[in-house]
Amino acid sequence: MAKPLDYENLNENIKKCQYAVRGELYLRASELQKEGKKIIFTNVGNPHALGQRPLTFPRQVIALCQAPFLLDDPNVGLVFPADAIARAKHYLALTSGGLGAYSDSRGLPGIRKEVADFIERRDGYPSDPELIFLTDGASKGVMQMLNAVINGASDGILVPVPQYPLYSASIALLGGSLVPYYLEETANWGLDIVNLRQSVAQARSQGITVRAMVIINPGNPTGQCLSEANLREVLNFCYQNNLLLLGDEVYQQNIYQDERPFISARKVLMGMGGPISKELQLVSFHTISKGFMGECGQRGGYFEMTNISPKAVEEIYKVASISLSPNVPAQILMGIMVNPPKPGDISYDRYARESKGILESLRRRAQLMTDGFNSCRNVVCNFTEGAMYSFPQIRLPPKAIEAANKAGKVPDVFYCLKLLEDTGISTVPGSGFGQKDGVFHLRTTILPAEEDMPAIMDSFKKFNDEFMEQYEDHKGYSRM
Amino acid sequence: MAKPLDYENLNENIKKCQYAVRGELYLRASELQKEGKKIIFTNVGNPHALGQRPLTFPRQVIALCQAPFLLDDPNVGLVFPADAIARAKHYLALTSGGLGAYSDSRGLPGIRKEVADFIERRDGYPSDPELIFLTDGASKGVMQMLNAVINGASDGILVPVPQYPLYSASIALLGGSLVPYYLEETANWGLDIVNLRQSVAQARSQGITVRAMVIINPGNPTGQCLSEANLREVLNFCYQNNLLLLGDEVYQQNIYQDERPFISARKVLMGMGGPISKELQLVSFHTISKGFMGECGQRGGYFEMTNISPKAVEEIYKVASISLSPNVPAQILMGIMVNPPKPGDISYDRYARESKGILESLRRRAQLMTDGFNSCRNVVCNFTEGAMYSFPQIRLPPKAIEAANKAGKVPDVFYCLKLLEDTGISTVPGSGFGQKDGVFHLRTTILPAEEDMPAIMDSFKKFNDEFMEQYEDHKGYSRM
Repeated sequence: MAKPLDYENLNENIKKCQYAVRGELYLRASELQKEGKKIIFTNVGNPHALGQRPLTFPRQVIALCQAPFLLDDPNVGLVFPADAIARAKHYLALTSGGLGAYSDSRGLPGIRKEVADFIERRDGYPSDPELIFLTDGASKGVMQMLNAVINGASDGILVPVPQYPLYSASIALLGGSLVPYYLEETANWGLDIVNLRQSVAQARSQGITVRAMVIINPGNPTGQCLSEANLREVLNFCYQNNLLLLGDEVYQQNIYQDERPFISARKVLMGMGGPISKELQLVSFHTISKGFMGECGQRGGYFEMTNISPKAVEEIYKVASISLSPNVPAQILMGIMVNPPKPGDISYDRYARESKGILESLRRRAQLMTDGFNSCRNVVCNFTEGAMYSFPQIRLPPKAIEAANKAGKVPDVFYCLKLLEDTGISTVPGSGFGQKDGVFHLRTTILPAEEDMPAIMDSFKKFNDEFMEQYEDHKGYSRM
Repeated sequence: MAKPLDYENLNENIKKCQYAVRGELYLRASELQKEGKKIIFTNVGNPHALGQRPLTFPRQVIALCQAPFLLDDPNVGLVFPADAIARAKHYLALTSGGLGAYSDSRGLPGIRKEVADFIERRDGYPSDPELIFLTDGASKGVMQMLNAVINGASDGILVPVPQYPLYSASIALLGGSLVPYYLEETANWGLDIVNLRQSVAQARSQGITVRAMVIINPGNPTGQCLSEANLREVLNFCYQNNLLLLGDEVYQQNIYQDERPFISARKVLMGMGGPISKELQLVSFHTISKGFMGECGQRGGYFEMTNISPKAVEEIYKVASISLSPNVPAQILMGIMVNPPKPGDISYDRYARESKGILESLRRRAQLMTDGFNSCRNVVCNFTEGAMYSFPQIRLPPKAIEAANKAGKVPDVFYCLKLLEDTGISTVPGSGFGQKDGVFHLRTTILPAEEDMPAIMDSFKKFNDEFMEQYEDHKGYSRM
């Protein structure tokens, strides 16, 4: 007889969900690493794991908050600058017992206020701290909101394809329906409203009520930045179709071109005025894991709700309260991210130098990677306008597809596994994000250290070009 | 037309769930606090919020891990002891890029090993790190496991009543069925197997498949410690009924008597030998939030799985991977909790003194509170053998119940609200935990500072005895 936690009895939604970023490729990479192979983990946007150093000022502040007894130590000034000491005192005063006490389940009020001030400075419209909830990373916030809107399989969520698999996995876990809309690779992964309308119509014909639409801006895995005009179209579309808009804006600091700076969905919405700006429901997500801070392991994020009624906010608060509170140290890091040292502060120059250094290097790496991929046989790649990823299309020859089928693998998984075994580069196959039929990609982060980048791209090129050589026309699989 | 996130459209399971620990009483207390009233928050086990100081050594280590650049600072030895420095280096070497990098979704392998070693030392049986997952607090782990076993409303979970409302709230959120079994107040909140059998039989007659049983040991809110004999009965009962046992053992360090020390469910299970010890599925939960560490705000916990098949473990791993990783700083605090300074270490004396001081004071406070409650009119209270709560029964006179009904309040909510308004003591009504019909309780933590305790109990007694005076026989409500 099967036991309660045997596979047969597990929640069916758990069995259905997939999370490719830590899927087959990642597990194989971990095995190879254990066997002693050098692995370059580009499967997940985890900058510190690839050598990015933490920003000094936020870490000084959080260290002092963790060790408040140092504030009375006469030697503290020998190892910490005065503005870090002052800032630590500021944050400790916002807590109700230091980092060891649960905060309010929405996060510390004082930090939610700092976030609201940041949003107001960024967008030019006031923001209400009561509508901002701090979370253990943006993913947790996304799950909370999806849980709030999904009642069952007939509730659909519009998700871009290719998409970050957090969405497909969470929707599966919550028993909802993912309604895909395709991004246009040939238009630099642009978003086409005609396509959106078709997706909604098709879902409706299947009895699905589409409740929400997800945009990821800058895009993951696709790296595009949405223009203001495009955002306005999306907002109008959501308004016409009575959709909640979920704006995944975690990469808003990561912009690598000047033509299309980041504009928040909320700024565009507020700028539209009229009924839409007072009625359209929008939830925006942000994080300390990306940008130039890259503090993934600390798990901090927030979401801001726009045009959500107090009664619904209360219910979302109630659910958050079951987990008591988001972790307090990351709340403080969020406070520092949205309220960094200012010109004239002791730590300003260092903070500015460190953050600028990271962003400029990422911009160069985005270019190096795009150029590298585009120099490879049968590989085409859009430029990474923002975010942290490169998502090249790999044009697999028919014989490679044949070989993959024979090996029982999806063709892009087959390619990525071979890449991993040959070079140690751990990527995620495009099938984990969704792609059009018969088209194949892989996702890699642009995060390897800049000095390692040329060698990595050479190693990729060598592998790819030999792979293509092996499987293209004249040297078929049958002759191996 | 209702919008997607309007109350009418919200997930029905969210509307159903209740979490009294941060419910009406807490919200009213927060309001009063804003208005300037002094509130004693005893609604939640949050020791640092009530003045408990963090243990020094763990905070030194985590501060150094947050500021790794200090390890190269010639002055570091002036403010940190050598063993904290050594320990910080040890933990940083276990990470893959410091605290800012995501760890494995199960937690850092090196820390899971330290947890396994702790369990082995505690129980005398080996523990496998591959079956230990670190989490953002124990609550998150409990939710993960409930999510794994609950497929729908026909899946039942046996939960003690009175219970910690994490269970009722999570089961409601996941759409399962809570199957209550009553603890016997007159037998010091003991667990009666006959009662358990009846609960299961009744659930089955309603078409519910009971899949799991929760025990909270030491009890929350009831404070009892389960005896080895009692645990053996529970394990046999679960085995006979093919139930997964969820052992909430977060208060295992908080024991305030010598007759019944804490024994883990796993130790008893292993000691039973035979098929049961190789087949019964058990998941045990632990945390850094309770014990003498009390690091609630850092959000760290673990669960250990026993007799769960690798295929099911893999699915649980997959779901954990969607949130990427538990926060890394709290993982390190967990490492220190299970592997504290040893005799001979520089920091040993201080660590031992601090932790002993906290535990001994809690023991005295448990006694002070029980005695205080038992000195009040119409109040009876079992001694807090363990955990952090006192759960007195309040015998409300009929006229008080009448007055509550007239005010549209559950009688114990009515009592607790008046207590709050009069004294500033913020408790949780027994109805939030479940109790037998017509019997009323409240839960308070034993955490207020020891020196404040006599005044708090005096203030409670004064309120209670006046309340009883007002509503008892001779001075009825009608004459007010």
